[in-house]
Amino acid sequence: MLHHTFIKVRGYHLDGYQHVNNARYLEFLEEARWGYLEQHGDIEHFEQLGLAWVIVNININYRAQATMGQQLRIDTEFSAINTKSSIIHQKIWLEGTETLVADANITFVCLDKKTGRAVVIEGDLKHRLEPRLTNQIDI
Amino acid sequence: MLHHTFIKVRGYHLDGYQHVNNARYLEFLEEARWGYLEQHGDIEHFEQLGLAWVIVNININYRAQATMGQQLRIDTEFSAINTKSSIIHQKIWLEGTETLVADANITFVCLDKKTGRAVVIEGDLKHRLEPRLTNQIDI
Amino acid sequence: MLHHTFIKVRGYHLDGYQHVNNARYLEFLEEARWGYLEQHGDIEHFEQLGLAWVIVNININYRAQATMGQQLRIDTEFSAINTKSSIIHQKIWLEGTETLVADANITFVCLDKKTGRAVVIEGDLKHRLEPRLTNQIDI
Amino acid sequence: MLHHTFIKVRGYHLDGYQHVNNARYLEFLEEARWGYLEQHGDIEHFEQLGLAWVIVNININYRAQATMGQQLRIDTEFSAINTKSSIIHQKIWLEGTETLVADANITFVCLDKKTGRAVVIEGDLKHRLEPRLTNQIDI
Repeated sequence: MLHHTFIKVRGYHLDGYQHVNNARYLEFLEEARWGYLEQHGDIEHFEQLGLAWVIVNININYRAQATMGQQLRIDTEFSAINTKSSIIHQKIWLEGTETLVADANITFVCLDKKTGRAVVIEGDLKHRLEPRLTNQIDI
Repeated sequence: MLHHTFIKVRGYHLDGYQHVNNARYLEFLEEARWGYLEQHGDIEHFEQLGLAWVIVNININYRAQATMGQQLRIDTEFSAINTKSSIIHQKIWLEGTETLVADANITFVCLDKKTGRAVVIEGDLKHRLEPRLTNQIDI
Repeated sequence: MLHHTFIKVRGYHLDGYQHVNNARYLEFLEEARWGYLEQHGDIEHFEQLGLAWVIVNININYRAQATMGQQLRIDTEFSAINTKSSIIHQKIWLEGTETLVADANITFVCLDKKTGRAVVIEGDLKHRLEPRLTNQIDI
Repeated sequence: MLHHTFIKVRGYHLDGYQHVNNARYLEFLEEARWGYLEQHGDIEHFEQLGLAWVIVNININYRAQATMGQQLRIDTEFSAINTKSSIIHQKIWLEGTETLVADANITFVCLDKKTGRAVVIEGDLKHRLEPRLTNQIDI
């Protein structure tokens, strides 16, 4: 259930070191997650339920530099569904190579907009997300 | 009635050309406008009136490059108040020098949030803003 | 010779007003220009000549708000080639509608990286760019 | 040896959820690190040695939302100096309160620009950084 997003590195993505800036990668990852959610019809679904996915942790490894003109491929998948949180795992590859540019775990809670509290991931919610879990274990 | 904002150029402000990116200057200008509005108590005032200042045009000249570690000073002032729009004029200087890095005219309309339409700038609204106009003419 | 770039509005493109932020549009326009230059093989060509295109003015009209989930189409074309500067004209449309979200003129000079001075656009340089001019007049 | 940076939340820092976007916090943290390095004269020092500090990991917890007009205080300090990497620990507070908005560990390596390899943190380099370690243990 791997989802792919492609982003080409442009001049405005770089910083003074001539490589993609550390903060910009988080926008790349967010772009990929919106694409993933869209593909699964999640955006409208959670909107209707009055639930918002709120990030509580991002743990990102920067493994290789990406520079001007390079094509990146971002792989996005659910890697864990816990009682009150879920983890989306994302890998940024230099497209067409075996070079891993960055990888990250994004931990979310599912917030009830009315109460402002994280809901327990059970019932329909769990059934919706669980089939997307990959067997692939990422640390 | 000139307002000053100071911003130091950092690595993440630069792009692949090692100078501040064209889009980033618009964030610098926005930062300075918030500072200006705050100083005059405008944010709460217009919030209470149900009015939102919405940008309809930005015309910015990029005159000199700004790079890592340089200190910028942004001067902000009202330069025109028209029937339905106003112009804020901003200049970005390399602090302590006569180098003008960029200058811009930002044209706003004052939107009534209920109707979604631009209001006529008259009465109290005009009296509030008019004294801030400088005699200094900028083209 | 119109070039199209498509960008979907995501949550991170918005600002506190829930619409695409004024500075973000300049990144959208830059994205589109890189796509345009790439399509014409300009990036490597000017790199080899030691020439850099440097923005000296952006004049952008914000005509309609763009919000979450909307698909934007950016049209990019050369609209003027002057002695020492050129103008790229760009329009941002709400895809599939007649709604013009923004339009902008981007004025460039062609900088000789060795001398740091703008070159005269003549000879091969002029021959390369001139055929791309559209008859369409934009004010 | 705690260093403080102050940033006021502005409209352009927010995203569609009306709170500071996850990627923007990384710019806030980078701003604070530049301020820290500057205070200690590190920027020129490492420049002269031909060393670049390159981020290999960011682990950030988002603990509370920050919204329009709030004043943030960012505390920056070294929390670990290992053989080939160092950790800078940063906390983002809602100024004047006990609300922790976010906290992050930023892991760096010290890259020799000539070889492109991480150097061992020993000798003068270690002596320069070690006194800055705080006793305060952050997990």
